[in-house]
Amino acid sequence: MSRLDSFIRRMQAQRSCLNHAAELVRELPGHVLEFGLGNGRTYDHLRGLLPERNIYVFDRQINAHPDCVPPGDRMFLGDFQETLPQAVAQLGATAVLLHADCGTGDDAANRVLADALTPSFVKLAKSGAVLIADRAINAGEFEPLPLPADVSAGRYFMYRRV
Amino acid sequence: MSRLDSFIRRMQAQRSCLNHAAELVRELPGHVLEFGLGNGRTYDHLRGLLPERNIYVFDRQINAHPDCVPPGDRMFLGDFQETLPQAVAQLGATAVLLHADCGTGDDAANRVLADALTPSFVKLAKSGAVLIADRAINAGEFEPLPLPADVSAGRYFMYRRV
Ligand SMILES: C[S@@+](CC[C@H](N)C(=O)[O-])C[C@H]1O[C@@H](n2cnc3c(N)ncnc32)[C@H](O)[C@@H]1O
Ligand code: NI
Ligand code: NI
Repeated sequence: MSRLDSFIRRMQAQRSCLNHAAELVRELPGHVLEFGLGNGRTYDHLRGLLPERNIYVFDRQINAHPDCVPPGDRMFLGDFQETLPQAVAQLGATAVLLHADCGTGDDAANRVLADALTPSFVKLAKSGAVLIADRAINAGEFEPLPLPADVSAGRYFMYRRV
Repeated sequence: MSRLDSFIRRMQAQRSCLNHAAELVRELPGHVLEFGLGNGRTYDHLRGLLPERNIYVFDRQINAHPDCVPPGDRMFLGDFQETLPQAVAQLGATAVLLHADCGTGDDAANRVLADALTPSFVKLAKSGAVLIADRAINAGEFEPLPLPADVSAGRYFMYRRV
């Protein structure tokens, strides 16, 4: 499998998980949180799936396609380690869908980052919220959810906040 | 269709065209030219499809995944406008598969770049060579080829060097 193949599978897995999560939270009022704007592809997909929700977006910088830049009052700009505590203070446990796609090329750093952010994810997620992540999240408050049928184990991760 | 959807379709179209082109040139001896290394995903795919070929790669800089960096003697590093004439001088019309994925976010600039590079593509392509590109190529020497069944018109482009 080439890197092109595995990249396509990863994007498809990401999309399937976002689509599935949107169905799971459709009846549950609350916000959407996107950790990692990047070029705004998954943000654009999420706002199409859940057009009536507030989507708060976190990133160090805005590098997105001009059409995919969130409104300024929904953007937490800066390092996650600083903006997540701000969001906890501002929003509390009001999120029903959280998507963490914060990865860079460095697997070890990604693991450390995910573990550092997990306590904030716990505080931001309302009971019943769905968390989707590009890597495993280790917290008793997040119970693994079955993945959509077309997503292989380990390619993307889904949890339900107890 | 979200930007995530259209991105996935573009990657799939690119892969289908590369796969199809590799079959078309399988019996035709010659080199492969990759214009735009980027993170090396299509380079990795091409070397899997055609492991026995020399693949020459052109980019301004090396930003690829460490596993996807071509050998130094197959890399033309610098602005296309300088490296393509060098390649014409060094290689002549010896390429049987050319993949031009040079696009940035700017459509008008991409059009200008494609037109500026086309005369070099003509000189580098052996008769019978297949050119795949992320935008239309306008030259009488390149006749449009039918796209693979799963690729919509205008999503990717394929030509045969007369
Ligand atoms: C893989 S990209 C996100 C891609 C996005 N989901 C998309 O579909 O386009 C990861 C993003 O996380 C951001 N990021 C990584 N570590 C960060 C940190 N510690 N603080 C803030 N942003 C960070 C990067 O700037 C990058 O834009
Ligand atoms: Ni790697
Ligand atoms: Ni655009």
